[in-house]
Amino acid sequence: LIELYDMPVSGNCYKVRLLFAHLGVAYRRHSVELGDRFERTELLGALNPALRVPTVVLQDGRSLAESGAILWYFGEGTRFVPVDRYLRAQMPQWMFFEQYEHELTIAVARKRLSYSDPPQVDGRLAELQAAGRKALATLDAHLEGRDYLVGDGMTLADIALYAYTHMADEGFDLSGYWNIGRWLEWIAAEPGHVPTTA
Amino acid sequence: LIELYDMPVSGNCYKVRLLFAHLGVAYRRHSVELGDRFERTELLGALNPALRVPTVVLQDGRSLAESGAILWYFGEGTRFVPVDRYLRAQMPQWMFFEQYEHELTIAVARKRLSYSDPPQVDGRLAELQAAGRKALATLDAHLEGRDYLVGDGMTLADIALYAYTHMADEGFDLSGYWNIGRWLEWIAAEPGHVPTTA
Repeated sequence: LIELYDMPVSGNCYKVRLLFAHLGVAYRRHSVELGDRFERTELLGALNPALRVPTVVLQDGRSLAESGAILWYFGEGTRFVPVDRYLRAQMPQWMFFEQYEHELTIAVARKRLSYSDPPQVDGRLAELQAAGRKALATLDAHLEGRDYLVGDGMTLADIALYAYTHMADEGFDLSGYWNIGRWLEWIAAEPGHVPTTA
Repeated sequence: LIELYDMPVSGNCYKVRLLFAHLGVAYRRHSVELGDRFERTELLGALNPALRVPTVVLQDGRSLAESGAILWYFGEGTRFVPVDRYLRAQMPQWMFFEQYEHELTIAVARKRLSYSDPPQVDGRLAELQAAGRKALATLDAHLEGRDYLVGDGMTLADIALYAYTHMADEGFDLSGYWNIGRWLEWIAAEPGHVPTTA
């Protein structure tokens, strides 16, 4: 069986679980606690040099890390990766945007506000929130008139962006982003969809 | 001709120029100044929703952004993308690591120290430097006994990591990272290599 080192609150891990659900991939979950560096070295030291989750171990014992790379490995050759060369490159354009501008502002602001005790409300949070609103506005503008981020079918890019966007209300007011709201409902309505609590 | 919207000091843009040099891709450069948001909207508004460089415009007029996605588009089918499925996914593992843990600490610390007037020396810089050293240590440990990041040939991952690592001395002391030093020399010795000033 495929092993998934997973953290239940992590949107990056949820991306992998969501793709696995759509593809019917059978796997075993190992939960890692937030912030436990010692445990991480014990668990992940030989599997992922960056000591982060998600990390998967394939059936042959080889490991793979970074949510985007794991999505790539399992998504290749399925309906979630476009056949057209240009669309196949637009997909990672949005996946890199997600990791660089979106996850690192939205997920980090969410963690500081909703998963820190006490919440870390400071100038850095304000910077993250401003940058997060910019990322949400970029995403919202792109989704104008579109059902999916790339081409006319669901791709790994939708899975990658859905994860933290649908959690962004833990830190951001999403009410003005109409295209995002519509797209979130659309992705969640896809047959095979599972919530992050599944 | 392919158009490249480019910033000379940007490591992300250099990745694209380095791959183009290796592949013999002919292109025209358009330089964008650091931090000029108004000019960026004028130049890039219709081409890249994130208003960042590098952005390329293909011969058919369609645009593509995010260095990793541009590398992907031009690298597919060349010797810089492994044929083996597992190695082909390990390559983006390192490319996502680069954007998430490496570029966002090393490039941002470099910008605050060496490309800001006056230099922004504060608590945030110290955080970025600590995180940057962790990323360099992760990279150095992975390169132990390896000539290339993935498999036994140069891939897009080497191009992606080379860019800011070889500039990291503008902000970090690289003298203890022996494997990184050896690998930087090795990548620069590859036939077809060009420096960032080319």
